[in-house]
Amino acid sequence: MFKRILIANRGECAIRIIRACRELDIKAVAIYSEADANALHVKKADFAVMIGPDPVKSYLNIHRIVTIAVETGCDAVHPGFGFLSENDEFARRVTEAGMTYIGPSPDAIRDMGSKTKARESMIAAGVPVIPGSEGELSSIDEALVLANDMGYPVMLKAAAGGGGRGIRRCDNDAELRENYDITKREATAAFGDDALFMEKCIVEPHHIEFQILADSHGNVVHLFERDCSIQRRNQKLIEIAPSNFLTPELRAEMGAVAVKAAKAVNYVNAGTVEFLVDKDHNFWFMEMNTRLQVEHTITETITDVDIVAQQIAIAEGKPLPFTQEELSFHGFAIEFRINAEDPKNGFLPTPGRITRYNSPGGPGIRVDGCVYAGYEIPPHYDSMCAKLTVSGPDWESTVRRSKRALAEYDIRGVRTTLPFYSAIAGSDVFMQGEFDTGFMDKHPELLNYKQKKTREDIAAAVAVAIAAHCGL
Amino acid sequence: MFKRILIANRGECAIRIIRACRELDIKAVAIYSEADANALHVKKADFAVMIGPDPVKSYLNIHRIVTIAVETGCDAVHPGFGFLSENDEFARRVTEAGMTYIGPSPDAIRDMGSKTKARESMIAAGVPVIPGSEGELSSIDEALVLANDMGYPVMLKAAAGGGGRGIRRCDNDAELRENYDITKREATAAFGDDALFMEKCIVEPHHIEFQILADSHGNVVHLFERDCSIQRRNQKLIEIAPSNFLTPELRAEMGAVAVKAAKAVNYVNAGTVEFLVDKDHNFWFMEMNTRLQVEHTITETITDVDIVAQQIAIAEGKPLPFTQEELSFHGFAIEFRINAEDPKNGFLPTPGRITRYNSPGGPGIRVDGCVYAGYEIPPHYDSMCAKLTVSGPDWESTVRRSKRALAEYDIRGVRTTLPFYSAIAGSDVFMQGEFDTGFMDKHPELLNYKQKKTREDIAAAVAVAIAAHCGL
Repeated sequence: MFKRILIANRGECAIRIIRACRELDIKAVAIYSEADANALHVKKADFAVMIGPDPVKSYLNIHRIVTIAVETGCDAVHPGFGFLSENDEFARRVTEAGMTYIGPSPDAIRDMGSKTKARESMIAAGVPVIPGSEGELSSIDEALVLANDMGYPVMLKAAAGGGGRGIRRCDNDAELRENYDITKREATAAFGDDALFMEKCIVEPHHIEFQILADSHGNVVHLFERDCSIQRRNQKLIEIAPSNFLTPELRAEMGAVAVKAAKAVNYVNAGTVEFLVDKDHNFWFMEMNTRLQVEHTITETITDVDIVAQQIAIAEGKPLPFTQEELSFHGFAIEFRINAEDPKNGFLPTPGRITRYNSPGGPGIRVDGCVYAGYEIPPHYDSMCAKLTVSGPDWESTVRRSKRALAEYDIRGVRTTLPFYSAIAGSDVFMQGEFDTGFMDKHPELLNYKQKKTREDIAAAVAVAIAAHCGL
Repeated sequence: MFKRILIANRGECAIRIIRACRELDIKAVAIYSEADANALHVKKADFAVMIGPDPVKSYLNIHRIVTIAVETGCDAVHPGFGFLSENDEFARRVTEAGMTYIGPSPDAIRDMGSKTKARESMIAAGVPVIPGSEGELSSIDEALVLANDMGYPVMLKAAAGGGGRGIRRCDNDAELRENYDITKREATAAFGDDALFMEKCIVEPHHIEFQILADSHGNVVHLFERDCSIQRRNQKLIEIAPSNFLTPELRAEMGAVAVKAAKAVNYVNAGTVEFLVDKDHNFWFMEMNTRLQVEHTITETITDVDIVAQQIAIAEGKPLPFTQEELSFHGFAIEFRINAEDPKNGFLPTPGRITRYNSPGGPGIRVDGCVYAGYEIPPHYDSMCAKLTVSGPDWESTVRRSKRALAEYDIRGVRTTLPFYSAIAGSDVFMQGEFDTGFMDKHPELLNYKQKKTREDIAAAVAVAIAAHCGL
């Protein structure tokens, strides 16, 4: 049983793990950069250690984080999501320092982190993968031949990529030629590795992912799916569990394939197998995320399984407390990522001071937040302020409840994605309940919502009016 | 379909109903007293009308409330709980004014509101009732004969009573003689009716109540039970669903009796049948509450049924959307009534200004609150600030989560019952999961928790120290 866990993360991710630790009587050690001195995860942890002055590099400083974990007497480290959560070197260093890494083995992280290796493993295991290059592309000529073989459109992808970066669609030879070098440069800049591969482009697919839990005794289960099709530029905005698009038969089939995929790489701990599904219900393995996902909350809500507590129990060597047959889900859950961004301005981040913060309550509402009234959102990080998870017994009541909760959520001082999500939740297309990844492009009208005026807007408008009146 | 509902209530009760209205696209009209001008229910409603200057009488002013409902174009009135929620005259006046009363018929309210009448109906229906007087006691002599017949201890109860008031236990002839006149005076003062009846006292019973839903087409179901045994002076503090004390067989049997009780009085809408259960699993009807209960949240959590939405649907004439067989529950839920009271000072109310308010979040947390940072709790009303409902898949994890959530709840400026509940949730006796109504008396040690010092305490201590130092 762990006594003390270092959480190598910040914000709501760190808070989620602190909560799990508290419920298990485990002390939580937080880390923070200078910019995060007033962050909520620092206040909520049992202990908090400053890692350094650099806002981002601090959270990526493997040596310093492992040293702090050792010095504060931690017996385990939880990486959360983002930052070092898919860094096999970090997992290895934690283990070498005599602590337990709460996640899969370094080898599993590395192998699933490489898109080409993951693809090879999946083909070997008999998991359907998207038609594409076998391994890295060696040249633009090879790419052109392959693209013409399988037919356009195709996707160029950085082998070391993730999170939607380093991916470009090509509809013909000319686009492929143009994008080949661009994507290589992007891959180098973002991941330090210019290796590319190519896949057939599945047009307007559904993004469906299965949550996996695997213990160290060879037991693997899935906790059903999440529909993450509502994305903007491959960034998830709203996630849904279960998916309205799957039939019970398809769910069972895809779940079994996801379990097979995890078993093929001897996976241990929580992970997610992501699939693309076309309109005819054909599905293909896309990638496996070897960590907790942001959107795990909706799975927790419909299954009553505490995924973070399970991650800890698995890392402690405990067997899973349930079999696949014992798992079920009830109702629907929708997660809205409340970001400090202005959707009307290209989703530009809007860091600044929160002047008022009142979260919604009542039935079917879960809030995972990391901001409070008076908090200054630093400009250095992900712009997520909170995750709003709404649940109900059926799709329609869950959507209606979402609309209510979004309207009730009162965040002032910075613009957020709340009014945009209100427009989505109130739309007929959302109520219909089935979306593919083209949703955002097909419904630009959802951006035409009314923006509540902030104090700053009003002050600026008054200043302009006075200036005009005075002939300035 | 209702278009506009007047909510004849305040605080978190009114907010709960506003939330249901929002989810059903119904406009909510709030009412408020002068003292409640800054109350959260006023801010959250679509419309709000001031009813008068008197803090309490305003919410009891039937004529004024019905007039406002008519003038604001409401087609229905929801009474909530407390105030006019069990006043048959109010229900009648609402109906006579051409609107729908969201609750049972005036006759059902009246008949179940009279303990003697309710008892007669239940005996006629074959529902087990506690041995006691048949109807009102005519004299102390009759009371003495009866008490000696059934054996002490006995309970003297005001026929018009409710909410734990007008009830006294008598252990012998002398106590019965003494309490007879006292209880009569209390009954007159509290309910304007001095009628008393007597019941055999069930020693340290469990308080178990069944949630009923009955539509206007003769369908009646129960939504399982709530264990409300943790009380102080007959006031519920913590409620649990389901009860750890019931077996599945006893649950089915008591549920069927609760449905029979409701059917016996042609009950329509939501109601609660309260039972006392002794340690040998014998159970007796205690009373029926003809309204929504404060603790409905735990039933909503384990059944995924929105009880307030069902109340509205039933009042609209819709049939229940489920049969008894289709209903089930999952996991456990515990409600903590967070009151602005000082448990160490006899639970004295602590009205005042809330200086900080941060509610807990994450998995399994529901908050129904009515306060915010900067809000001044008025001294005129019930001292409840919020209801914290915690849920989990099993009893142990739900208790651990409760402990975490209570510790995370940050309310400053006034003392609350939070630290007291933390002591309860952290105790071995609570983790054992089975309690009777003697719990609070048996565990006075739970009041020996450490009180966090408030700013006011610190300021006062500093003042005393300075005064002492200066020889003042």
